[in-house]
Amino acid sequence: MTAAAFEQITLAVDQGVATLTLYRPDKLNAFTTQMMHEMVAAFDAIDADDAIRAVIVTGSGRAFCAGADISGGAANFRVDASATSAPDYSDPATRDGGGILALRIFQLKKPIIAAINGPAIGIGATMLLPTDLRIASDTARFGFVFARRGIVPEAASSYFLPRLVGISRALRWCYTGAVFGADEALAGGLVEQVVPPADLLPTAQALAREIADNAAPVSVALTRQMLWRGLGMSDPMEAHRIESRGILTRSQSADAHEGVAAFLEKRPARFPDRVSADMPDYFPWWDETPYG
Amino acid sequence: MTAAAFEQITLAVDQGVATLTLYRPDKLNAFTTQMMHEMVAAFDAIDADDAIRAVIVTGSGRAFCAGADISGGAANFRVDASATSAPDYSDPATRDGGGILALRIFQLKKPIIAAINGPAIGIGATMLLPTDLRIASDTARFGFVFARRGIVPEAASSYFLPRLVGISRALRWCYTGAVFGADEALAGGLVEQVVPPADLLPTAQALAREIADNAAPVSVALTRQMLWRGLGMSDPMEAHRIESRGILTRSQSADAHEGVAAFLEKRPARFPDRVSADMPDYFPWWDETPYG
Amino acid sequence: MTAAAFEQITLAVDQGVATLTLYRPDKLNAFTTQMMHEMVAAFDAIDADDAIRAVIVTGSGRAFCAGADISGGAANFRVDASATSAPDYSDPATRDGGGILALRIFQLKKPIIAAINGPAIGIGATMLLPTDLRIASDTARFGFVFARRGIVPEAASSYFLPRLVGISRALRWCYTGAVFGADEALAGGLVEQVVPPADLLPTAQALAREIADNAAPVSVALTRQMLWRGLGMSDPMEAHRIESRGILTRSQSADAHEGVAAFLEKRPARFPDRVSADMPDYFPWWDETPYG
Repeated sequence: MTAAAFEQITLAVDQGVATLTLYRPDKLNAFTTQMMHEMVAAFDAIDADDAIRAVIVTGSGRAFCAGADISGGAANFRVDASATSAPDYSDPATRDGGGILALRIFQLKKPIIAAINGPAIGIGATMLLPTDLRIASDTARFGFVFARRGIVPEAASSYFLPRLVGISRALRWCYTGAVFGADEALAGGLVEQVVPPADLLPTAQALAREIADNAAPVSVALTRQMLWRGLGMSDPMEAHRIESRGILTRSQSADAHEGVAAFLEKRPARFPDRVSADMPDYFPWWDETPYG
Repeated sequence: MTAAAFEQITLAVDQGVATLTLYRPDKLNAFTTQMMHEMVAAFDAIDADDAIRAVIVTGSGRAFCAGADISGGAANFRVDASATSAPDYSDPATRDGGGILALRIFQLKKPIIAAINGPAIGIGATMLLPTDLRIASDTARFGFVFARRGIVPEAASSYFLPRLVGISRALRWCYTGAVFGADEALAGGLVEQVVPPADLLPTAQALAREIADNAAPVSVALTRQMLWRGLGMSDPMEAHRIESRGILTRSQSADAHEGVAAFLEKRPARFPDRVSADMPDYFPWWDETPYG
Repeated sequence: MTAAAFEQITLAVDQGVATLTLYRPDKLNAFTTQMMHEMVAAFDAIDADDAIRAVIVTGSGRAFCAGADISGGAANFRVDASATSAPDYSDPATRDGGGILALRIFQLKKPIIAAINGPAIGIGATMLLPTDLRIASDTARFGFVFARRGIVPEAASSYFLPRLVGISRALRWCYTGAVFGADEALAGGLVEQVVPPADLLPTAQALAREIADNAAPVSVALTRQMLWRGLGMSDPMEAHRIESRGILTRSQSADAHEGVAAFLEKRPARFPDRVSADMPDYFPWWDETPYG
């Protein structure tokens, strides 16, 4: 699937920063199975392109994403309409589509910043959780509305949400299903920063630039997976084993020679290693838990 | 055990909200084995009663709970006086009574709000941790005093406390054993809100009402277990597996049809499904770790 | 290795509080393999000495620790220069030296407070994470600069950092590699308190005193391991099993008898039990994950 083939999103790259925009502006960017597949394809393309050093995800028009498109009724909470009523948990058609997207974001090798330009409801809120940093316009609103619709949290949010905002705030938001504003999101740690609408994309772009201009891409890709997976480890020894491999191999890399030389010479570094070719041989170090 | 049989607690239900009150006012509601058994029985009754949509726990008189009743000496830190000196970890008599209570609260299918009306010391503080939301009167005080008494944290607080308030604050409170006020509890994330004494129960009741009036009870019961258990998972894929079952089954439920219809018709939902009869067949999805 | 043998650190004990000072003031206390081994030896000595009730770690001169001593080039990120280029993960020479230190701090039986007197960069920042409490001078600065040097986070920081400051702040600090001040560290939860330089050691000492003067040493040693290890548990039942053994055995201890008697008699407790002799027989309760 190429960028030209996208219908419900757009993907643009400018000076190393990719911007993925949800693009159903007349539907408040309501989430569909097609949008999910297009987003997954876009993240695959982003990971494969060494020219992309950071990612911004945002929405077109006045909403970020108003939730699952339920104009067809409750069955559409399952994004794949091919699912039968008989549960078959090894069948992708019975998997939560929001979770497929969230797990793809979790796997990403590039830093990802959400620029939340308006309402982010249901899957519009939960798809934000595995992004690295969340910046909201002061017009943004959020709602974990599942219990008001008779369903349950999704997009792996039962893993991510209590870790990001604490168990009590996560429960309160999910119990009441209330829609709340950017200030409450900021106070709760759901977003890191709230800015006027005109400053939203420039703020996200400046942060993406700071990463792209200073950090070694292979270091960044490893760091993203190390910290997100470290968050779920049960023991610091697990982290030590991975880090030892990282320090041993990366300290001998061309990037480290350049990084140290640039530091000692007080000049910007120009890192030669590329994510497509130079990830260490122990990456990925995890056995992905099979689905089923 | 019926409500009428309770001696050290009271249990009242009003418009779908149960209030469990520790009731040894002349003893500052000091915790005993009997109180533990009565609380467990009350939570069993609450879970079995579909008319109860949310729970408030509070104390009678001027204290919430002044700690274990140690008027008989140090042996009473073990709430069950039948315990012998020989450790037999498969014997319930050698289990920490505070932990039995905390794990029962952890299992609860209804949202639970603590309304902390006064001192909450020792087990009075640690029994708060597995409740969902904690609101304190400005007269409340807290103390994790175990190291000052020569014992150790209990009621599964070594699991809950660092997750609720962070490891550094948890260690500081437990190391010094200092008794501190509602403001410090609020700053540390131990409570979510501090109100004047007269506003304590009304604030808790309003929050209970907001949940009871808007959310589907089966969704709430699933959400409670999903988020609390998600907090302990090591991998978002674990959450995705549970959530996929939830989305698949609940999106086909009568609750979801009603939830979506009410949303589209802009009217309040009247959810038909009941916790006693309509929990999905994969619930409970966990294998309870056996004790021993 | 005795205190007299230390060259790159100093260790002093005053009224039950040990102060470990990084001591390469002319090198901004840059971290070396020798410093790592001396710190590990000092923590072994501290754990073995019942007269020591709490530990302060600080730096000599104007820095806390400016990072790994890379005056010899990138290879020195591996603190042990004997490491060959062939990875052999069972060989200690290929282990991350910062991680060896961090895991030793994690194992400590005494409360440890960091008094950060100036720049704490790279391993200077990550070695702080497994300390219990962090107090910074307003002259302190911090930097998780690994991605700017072409390497990756170390010292088990991929486990500790997201738990201490949240995943988003951890990623931001590690992605940009920016050096930031004490105020940002305080806002992010990396330090608990910021004080003028002259107040740094007195503040740390007063906190160490509060612990040493009130808490039973065996209770403190157990509490430290219970809470740090509780933070990584996947289930509160795991905590309940350990705590039940703690309550059962410690409630019968001489410390508990003294603690309760002192409380009832409203006098300071004088706890007889000692860490060197009186830790319960179930300690340590964990099977240390082998390295490899």
